[in-house]
Order: sequence, then C-alpha cells, then structure tokens
Amino acid sequence: IRARQAESAYQYRDILVCKQDGYTHLQLSIKSADDNALTLEAMKEMQAAMALAAADDSQILLLGAVDGTFCSGLDLVTLVKMLVENKQQSTRIAEGLRDFVSAFIYFRKPIVAAVGGPAVGLGAALLGLCDIVFASEKASFETPYAVMGQSPEGCASYTFPRTMGYLAACELLFCGRKLTAEEACTKGLVSQVFWPGCFTQEVIVRVRELAACRTMVLMETKELLRSVMRSELDLANQRECDALQRIWSSSEGVNSLISYLRKQDKVLP
Amino acid sequence: IRARQAESAYQYRDILVCKQDGYTHLQLSIKSADDNALTLEAMKEMQAAMALAAADDSQILLLGAVDGTFCSGLDLVTLVKMLVENKQQSTRIAEGLRDFVSAFIYFRKPIVAAVGGPAVGLGAALLGLCDIVFASEKASFETPYAVMGQSPEGCASYTFPRTMGYLAACELLFCGRKLTAEEACTKGLVSQVFWPGCFTQEVIVRVRELAACRTMVLMETKELLRSVMRSELDLANQRECDALQRIWSSSEGVNSLISYLRKQDKVLP
Amino acid sequence: IRARQAESAYQYRDILVCKQDGYTHLQLSIKSADDNALTLEAMKEMQAAMALAAADDSQILLLGAVDGTFCSGLDLVTLVKMLVENKQQSTRIAEGLRDFVSAFIYFRKPIVAAVGGPAVGLGAALLGLCDIVFASEKASFETPYAVMGQSPEGCASYTFPRTMGYLAACELLFCGRKLTAEEACTKGLVSQVFWPGCFTQEVIVRVRELAACRTMVLMETKELLRSVMRSELDLANQRECDALQRIWSSSEGVNSLISYLRKQDKVLP
Repeated sequence: IRARQAESAYQYRDILVCKQDGYTHLQLSIKSADDNALTLEAMKEMQAAMALAAADDSQILLLGAVDGTFCSGLDLVTLVKMLVENKQQSTRIAEGLRDFVSAFIYFRKPIVAAVGGPAVGLGAALLGLCDIVFASEKASFETPYAVMGQSPEGCASYTFPRTMGYLAACELLFCGRKLTAEEACTKGLVSQVFWPGCFTQEVIVRVRELAACRTMVLMETKELLRSVMRSELDLANQRECDALQRIWSSSEGVNSLISYLRKQDKVLP
Repeated sequence: IRARQAESAYQYRDILVCKQDGYTHLQLSIKSADDNALTLEAMKEMQAAMALAAADDSQILLLGAVDGTFCSGLDLVTLVKMLVENKQQSTRIAEGLRDFVSAFIYFRKPIVAAVGGPAVGLGAALLGLCDIVFASEKASFETPYAVMGQSPEGCASYTFPRTMGYLAACELLFCGRKLTAEEACTKGLVSQVFWPGCFTQEVIVRVRELAACRTMVLMETKELLRSVMRSELDLANQRECDALQRIWSSSEGVNSLISYLRKQDKVLP
Repeated sequence: IRARQAESAYQYRDILVCKQDGYTHLQLSIKSADDNALTLEAMKEMQAAMALAAADDSQILLLGAVDGTFCSGLDLVTLVKMLVENKQQSTRIAEGLRDFVSAFIYFRKPIVAAVGGPAVGLGAALLGLCDIVFASEKASFETPYAVMGQSPEGCASYTFPRTMGYLAACELLFCGRKLTAEEACTKGLVSQVFWPGCFTQEVIVRVRELAACRTMVLMETKELLRSVMRSELDLANQRECDALQRIWSSSEGVNSLISYLRKQDKVLP
C-alpha cells in the first residue's frame, strides 16, 4: 500500500489515490484552489483515477477528502478570471464540467461517499450520483445556486427532486437552504450519519463489508438501479451545462458571480 | 400600489391581485362560493391574472388567500347543480378544470404558495404544481377523493407519489387522511412551517429575497427542474380530467357526490 | 363465510382465501417451506387466487399471513436444490418469479398488505407493488440481496428508489439494512403502524371502509396512479429476472447462495 500511495503521489497533484482491500480510495486534497474547490485540472485527475478504478479489480470507489471541507464546488475564482479574460472560455468550462459529471453517471461500480465536512454546490450535487453517502455530524450540505447567480449542475435538477421531493429540492436550489448532516439524512441525501470521532473507522468497516460481496452481484445490482435513469441523467447533465454556458457567456451572469465572490471576500482580478 | 389594488378590485371579483417588489401577489377571496371553493369563474380569473404575471416583469407568483381557508377545492355544490340539470355539462366542467391546471403546469416563473388554513381537494393538489410552499401551523391538507366519490385532479396522481412516495400518496388519495402542516412538511408537500403570528411576515421576507435573484437564473432553474416532467404532467392532467368527466356523466358518480354533500349539510337543489 | 373457507381449504395448500364484506382476504400459510417462504407452487396458488379476486366483485385484495412471519421471500433451500441438480432450472424459476410479480403489476383493484411480522427479500419487495401497507410494531423489513449473493427482485430496483430515494434504497439493497416498522413508515414503505394487540382489528376497519367506496372511483384512482408506471414496472421485472437467471445459472452465484444458507444453518443437499 505504501508503495502505491507513493506512486499516486507522483501521478496526481490534487487527489490522493490508494487501492486496498478491494476498493479504491480517492481523496480530494486540492492544491490549486482553497477549500477543495474543483478546478478543471482537479476534475481531469479525478476522471483519470475513476477510469483506472473502473478497469481494475476494485469493487467499490470510496470518495472522500483529506481536509475538513469535503468539497466546496466549482472553483469560482478561477472561473471568473477565465470569463473576464474571454467569455468564449465558457464553452470550454461547460464541456469540462459535463465530462466530469459524465464520469459519475457512467461509473458501473458502487460509489460510496464519505462526507466529513461542508459539501457546497457541485460538492453536494455529486452526492446524488453516488450510491451510498456516509456523513460525519460535522458535515453540511448547501447548493445556493440562485444566490450565486448560477443554475444547478451535477444533475441536481434531476436527482434532488427524486431524492427529497420536488418542493424540498426547490428550497435547496432556489433558496440555498443549508442542511445539517441529520437533516440531509432525513431528506435522503445521506444514508447514515456517524460521530466525527469514529467516522473514518465506521465508513471503512462498511466499505470493506460491501467490497467482500460478489463482483457479479454488485455490478448487476448497480446496473438494475441506475440503467433506467442513465439516459435521463445524461440529458439532465447536458441541459444543465448548456444553461450554465448561457449564464457564463452573458454579462449579467458574470457580473452576478463577481458580486457574489466580492461578498465572500474573495480576491478577484 | 394602492392604485393597482384599486384597479384590480375593479377587474376581478373572486381574487385580489397586487404587484409589488418584483412579485405578483394573487389572493383568493372568492365571493361566488363558500370557503374559497373554486368556481369555473374564479378559475378563469386566476388564469387571466397568471397570464398577466407571466408576461410582465414579475419574478415570482405568490399565491395565497385573504380568508382563513386557503382553498376548499372545486365548488362541488355548483358542480352538482349543473350536473343534475344536464349531465352534458360534465364535459364543460372537465375542460375548465383542465385549462386551469394547465395554467400551473406551463407557468415559467417560480410559484410560491402561502397556505394559512385548510387546503382541501384541488386546493391541496395544486401545491404539487407550485415550487415552494410555506404553511402556517394552522394549515391542514386533505384530499378525500375516494370518500367524496371523485378521482384525483390537479396532477395529484402524478405529483403526490413523486413527492411523498406511492404508498403515502395512496393514503391521502384513497383513505383521505388529513395532514397537519408539520406532517405535510415531513411528507414533502410543504417546504417550511411558520407560527401563525408571523406567517405573512416570514413569507414576504423570503419572497422578496427570491425576487431579488437574477431573472435569467430563476427562469433557467425552473426550466431545468420542470421541463423534464411537463409533458408527463400534461398527460396526467388530461387523464385525470377524462376520469372525472366519466364519473360526472354517470348516475353513480353524481349520486355519490350528492350523498357526500348531504352528509356535509350543504344545501342542494 | 364458513362454507367458503372450507371450500378454499380444499382448493389451496399454501394459502387461505376468504371473501367477505367486499374484499378478498388472502393469507399466506405455506406448508411446503418454513417461515412462509415462497415456493413456485405457493406463488402459483397466489396467482390463481388473485385472478379470481380480479374477476369477482371484490373491491379490495387484503394480503396477510396466518403465522407470525409475513413472508421470508423466495424459498432458497428448494431453489438451491433445483440448481444443484440442474442449472438449466434457473430459467424455469426465473419465469415463475416473473409471472408471479406480473400478477401484482397488472392487478387493477387496490391491494392492501397487512404485515404482522418479518418481511424479508421478495416478501418486503412485493410491498412496493401494493397500494396501502399496514404494519404491526412487530413487523420488520429486510432485503439483504447483496449479502445473499442475489440481485433485487419484485421490482424493488424500481419501486424502492421511488419510495424512499435512491440512496436509502441502496442501503437496503446493497447493505441489507433491517428496518423496524417505524423506520419503514418514515421511509414510505409502510403507510401506518399499529400496536400488535389491535393490529388485525385496525386493519379490518380500514379495509371495510375502503371497500365501501364506489367501484368506479377505486378503479379510476388506481388506474391513474399505476398506469403511468406499469410498462416501467414490467421492464424492471423482466430485467431483474434476467439478472437473477444469470446469477442462478453461474457457479459463482450458486456457491454464494450455498454459503449464505450454510451460515443460516439451513439443511442442504
């Protein structure tokens, strides 16, 4: 294991990848932005690691974060810099996002997420594309898209209404209501909540147990559950990225992002 | 604002319409029936007001009621009178209902409902076509269709199973179980519950906040959330109105409505 | 009633059927296996009784069990014996299962389930195809498919995500989490929970009330609720039975079933 960790440390900058006990452990540890925000480069690295985990003998993909924050969503600071420089870049960013989300939609093995801290925007939306989500009491969940001047991404416009009902989804996506781990569990966005002290331990026990199941059974079960919605998820991803591209290529959209980031005290160009 | 209220008071008999702070406030205040029951005329007025709100610069439609009762559903007394006179009228009523429900399905801006008292039948069903539903502790929710001798309407046969799960939907639609505001919130039919004393105030704060969001973002978000289900809602509405038309044009159906209304001490022809 | 019970006692071995007060009461009392496990013969008997209840003037089908256990799912001991003898039998078993589940999908009258004890595997999955589910406090719900080395059946891969959200469904189907009656009610797999002492009485009162509704209204309502998903349920059933057939006809699948049953101290060939 130690050798592999060393190896992966060479391969990736923004993630740590470690294969053990039948599962691949992918941890966000993003150097190119604050709070585990997803840059285009970090997303490319995750896609590469997911492609390897899909092809090797891993039974499960376990997705977590090294730091306290699980993931604060798309790296908006870099995004705004790119758009201010040239609005044409909106197409490239939307395509990068679409491909990243596709990697989740088409991943054929069970994905377990372990959320130990805040999950914001895309960081929360992606959970709807995982199969099991464990959260620590310290986790929180927030998709304040309308407030940011964005529209939903990561198939949240599809998965959130189906997970928690249409009205509850609107509260998160329109009003940006922030959920505690317990509230997210009640709403179906989290499978189980654990005390922070034993969080990692409890997750690993469960992931090992699942990884010990027959490959055939895990694959058939995931296929039965996801295959019916895969083409709809694909369409939702496409529609969401198209809407974001329209927003990002408009002055109204970029200005609204800039105002939002200024309120957050982010340094902008 | 005062001028507009005066203006709308001339235009409408059964509703109060008031445009302010970026939203249109539509309040039921039905004179032609008891308990804010929906007559064909009241539904036509609401459609007209919704068409104006869709076309002007309102960001949000806020739907409420002046009196204690939010809405007691279709005005069954007038309905029965019409059917007893001539069963052929069932077609006209079903068409009126279908067009009214269509106005909700095709409304492109967010609809916020503020339910301060009982919501019964169509009055509760319509909430499934809104985007955010705030309720006072005094609100209650009830769709006793099977008991009344009716079948579901307002797309409840589609939205209720998706909002609260199939089995919970059956309990409301078959058994007519009455929900408190808290229960409706747990089941996903209500977004948030407030104390009656500060209800209007809390709603207005949230509606203003939402109305301050970018138009583009509100429209794109609602479109992403609703567009996938619009054709299915349309079909559900059509199927529901066809079923009601079959019930209303049969002696069994009309007699069952009459027995139900007699038990409620309603004066009938 | 007594005469009919006597009559049904002649007709069936594994079920008790009793028609009264407008409903057909079908109770599992399986002699050919332990714990009300479903043999191919018991499933055939249930299909025959359901065909009669569909055609006669029963308004409701009430499904329960004579013994403590509601239903422990497919009779795996006989299944393994058949597969060990000849793997070709996997086709016959998968077809028997598919036809049995079809009988639920295409049943046009409301089905009420009364779950007084453990519901396991197919015994729990079938509840997603009923319309109302009453449970005693002593009931429990469990679908440990991955642990058993099986994939989901009874349309659970379709109904469970829609009933309780995708992530909660994965916890039951992948991790085999066992739910109490209260938990199942919160997740939407149960409509209402009663104390064991008055369970049968409370159920009968509600079933009689429902059976007193107009036939036309019950049929139209069920049709509105179920017709939209019938072709999808049919496809889910087909896909699930195909997956099980693949598992049952593989050595990996049969060996995993044998290990599971050995751990349960079941006597095997």
